[in-house]
Amino acid sequence: MLNIREATCADVSLILRLVRDLAEYEREPDAVVATEDDLLRDGFGAEPKFRVLIAEWDGTPVGFALYFYHYSTWLGRAGIFLEDLFVKPEYRGKGIGRALLTELARIAAQNGYYGVKWEVLDWNQPAIDFYQSLGAEIRKQWLTVRITGEAFRKLASDSV
Amino acid sequence: MLNIREATCADVSLILRLVRDLAEYEREPDAVVATEDDLLRDGFGAEPKFRVLIAEWDGTPVGFALYFYHYSTWLGRAGIFLEDLFVKPEYRGKGIGRALLTELARIAAQNGYYGVKWEVLDWNQPAIDFYQSLGAEIRKQWLTVRITGEAFRKLASDSV
Repeated sequence: MLNIREATCADVSLILRLVRDLAEYEREPDAVVATEDDLLRDGFGAEPKFRVLIAEWDGTPVGFALYFYHYSTWLGRAGIFLEDLFVKPEYRGKGIGRALLTELARIAAQNGYYGVKWEVLDWNQPAIDFYQSLGAEIRKQWLTVRITGEAFRKLASDSV
Repeated sequence: MLNIREATCADVSLILRLVRDLAEYEREPDAVVATEDDLLRDGFGAEPKFRVLIAEWDGTPVGFALYFYHYSTWLGRAGIFLEDLFVKPEYRGKGIGRALLTELARIAAQNGYYGVKWEVLDWNQPAIDFYQSLGAEIRKQWLTVRITGEAFRKLASDSV
């Protein structure tokens, strides 16, 4: 049976394993440089920068959703940003991903938020089909941009 | 001369005008349903959900950057998410957009964050060229997804 619970600091090692499993599924196994200390400091201190739901099947952790808050200036409302959603391959097809999304939507609705936002890889058609079946909108016209590493440090040290 | 300052609650009406100017530039003038009360409640209460930098040219407000926080589980670090960046058309070409991005990068660096993330419309080639000239990465493989409105309310009321 499925149970969804909030993660605690005792789950940091589990969360990091699930983050790595997800990165592997997303074909970027070497992209995870985060450590347990990072997740402990940022997720379970006085001002948590993210929150985590753990999905358990018959008591075994099989998936997770990691999220934080977002804001839409057009809607004038906060929303949930879902950074990571993952269910172990052998536990798919049991409605666990949907249950995690439902729980997030419930939290968002309880807080008066506008909804839930996330990202999906363009080759992950099963995920795209699933999200669209729930009525989610794939916003193809919006590209995500990031400045990190050397370019970020250079920009930060610019003299204006 | 350019001056960049943090917004206060006295700037709410200005911020909403700039949000509307940006939505018009992004060809979605009717998408802004936010009110001054929304921005006051969410940006200037006890737990602000966003922060705003105002750019002034010779004392006149000519642009803004509205941002909040994000988290990368792969990097194990928070980052700045830039929701809105706008400079009035008649003030472009003076380095104001770059100065706003520099200030955000500086804030991110001071906090030990991994960088700055945002979104751009796929037809906005001048903006894409500008971001790439700074060394930012356009992550075309990631699509943004959102569930809002009726589909969101339906999901939130799902019985799991």
